[in-house]
Amino acid sequence: MSKKTIIVFSGDYDKVMAAFIIANGAAAMDDEVTMFFTFWGLSALRKPGATSTGPKSLLQKAFSTMLPDGPEKLGLSKMNFAGMGPTLMKRVMKAANVMPVSDLIATAREQGITLIACTMSMDVMGIQRDELIDDIEYAGVATYLAEADEGNVNLFI
Amino acid sequence: MSKKTIIVFSGDYDKVMAAFIIANGAAAMDDEVTMFFTFWGLSALRKPGATSTGPKSLLQKAFSTMLPDGPEKLGLSKMNFAGMGPTLMKRVMKAANVMPVSDLIATAREQGITLIACTMSMDVMGIQRDELIDDIEYAGVATYLAEADEGNVNLFI
Amino acid sequence: MSKKTIIVFSGDYDKVMAAFIIANGAAAMDDEVTMFFTFWGLSALRKPGATSTGPKSLLQKAFSTMLPDGPEKLGLSKMNFAGMGPTLMKRVMKAANVMPVSDLIATAREQGITLIACTMSMDVMGIQRDELIDDIEYAGVATYLAEADEGNVNLFI
Repeated sequence: MSKKTIIVFSGDYDKVMAAFIIANGAAAMDDEVTMFFTFWGLSALRKPGATSTGPKSLLQKAFSTMLPDGPEKLGLSKMNFAGMGPTLMKRVMKAANVMPVSDLIATAREQGITLIACTMSMDVMGIQRDELIDDIEYAGVATYLAEADEGNVNLFI
Repeated sequence: MSKKTIIVFSGDYDKVMAAFIIANGAAAMDDEVTMFFTFWGLSALRKPGATSTGPKSLLQKAFSTMLPDGPEKLGLSKMNFAGMGPTLMKRVMKAANVMPVSDLIATAREQGITLIACTMSMDVMGIQRDELIDDIEYAGVATYLAEADEGNVNLFI
Repeated sequence: MSKKTIIVFSGDYDKVMAAFIIANGAAAMDDEVTMFFTFWGLSALRKPGATSTGPKSLLQKAFSTMLPDGPEKLGLSKMNFAGMGPTLMKRVMKAANVMPVSDLIATAREQGITLIACTMSMDVMGIQRDELIDDIEYAGVATYLAEADEGNVNLFI
């Protein structure tokens, strides 16, 4: 049993999927796993349709509107085809018995993987806690570094 | 002597090149190196012009057609210029005595670097074994994690 | 006290920012940090407005002209909006008291973080030493690997 950390910086469906497949695989092998969501990666933790009642600047409101709300709204890093790509990708994934990212997240939580939202990125983008899924942790770079110091595999995705 | 692992998720010429330069450098220093190709990265392992006789869904056929077949067909992550970028990049690489990716792959194999194709990604994209270069290994995330547990440097590219 | 290495391959403002936030956080916790700038990441080390007197091929001149000169000229990996994105991002960063990348670099230097420019990438892109900021180091992949061998966290960004 060892520890793994993954920084999920990307908000691309395919990269977020890869992050959760690695994380779930490690947890299944009894590893302790911490995922640290920052920048575009925060979109994967947003509740679908969530709008916050908290204060936002005009620019933060614009960011919120443009950022995907939830994992199934994410685009692909390649072949996005004006938004058609993810639908096609999910169809081939289903045919290959690969779970969509929302299910991968649910599995991650069942397996006790720690999901941390980067508070600094939240401040920058004006993302409030009530926009993100429940029962996650909130922390900054110091917490990430403390976790990574204990990890034997630390990835930036 | 230690072990290095690199996940090659990207299918961009420049990133695949970076992966092989690091891998070949490590192998030259007597490190054991495992490269795990997943998603878009699988394109780097495709044989030029290869078409599989295996069964594919319509969507998988479409993916196969659109995915680059082999390393020299990959695009750049920046300044791709509608496909002109890689040609220009290869010209400046040649002038600087930097090998094209196809040669970097050949060197990697001569040095005994282990190349693994991710079977789950192959299933999703409908890529068959006969489309990929010979003498590589096939495995999933559990194998990657076992290798990474032994690695002292583990990168995601 | 331990050692961290970061390969900065990306030339995106948001990714370079993430790299320096992690690096500065680690240095603040008394870690030794080495950042290795390669490919597009070299743009972050260019002096604004710098033009070299060194010899360049026509293609290298074209590359130099198109590559951003300095950190504040970098684009975003997402929502770049034809160059408007970084301005908007910097505005929300300022409101959240997050330093622009040029200040993050200055802090990194004050903290004694080692910045290394990849000489092979410089050769390919025709970037001369007098185009890059002063007091950095120049090295290749072997130096990176030697540093990474001593690191307990090694990221590719």
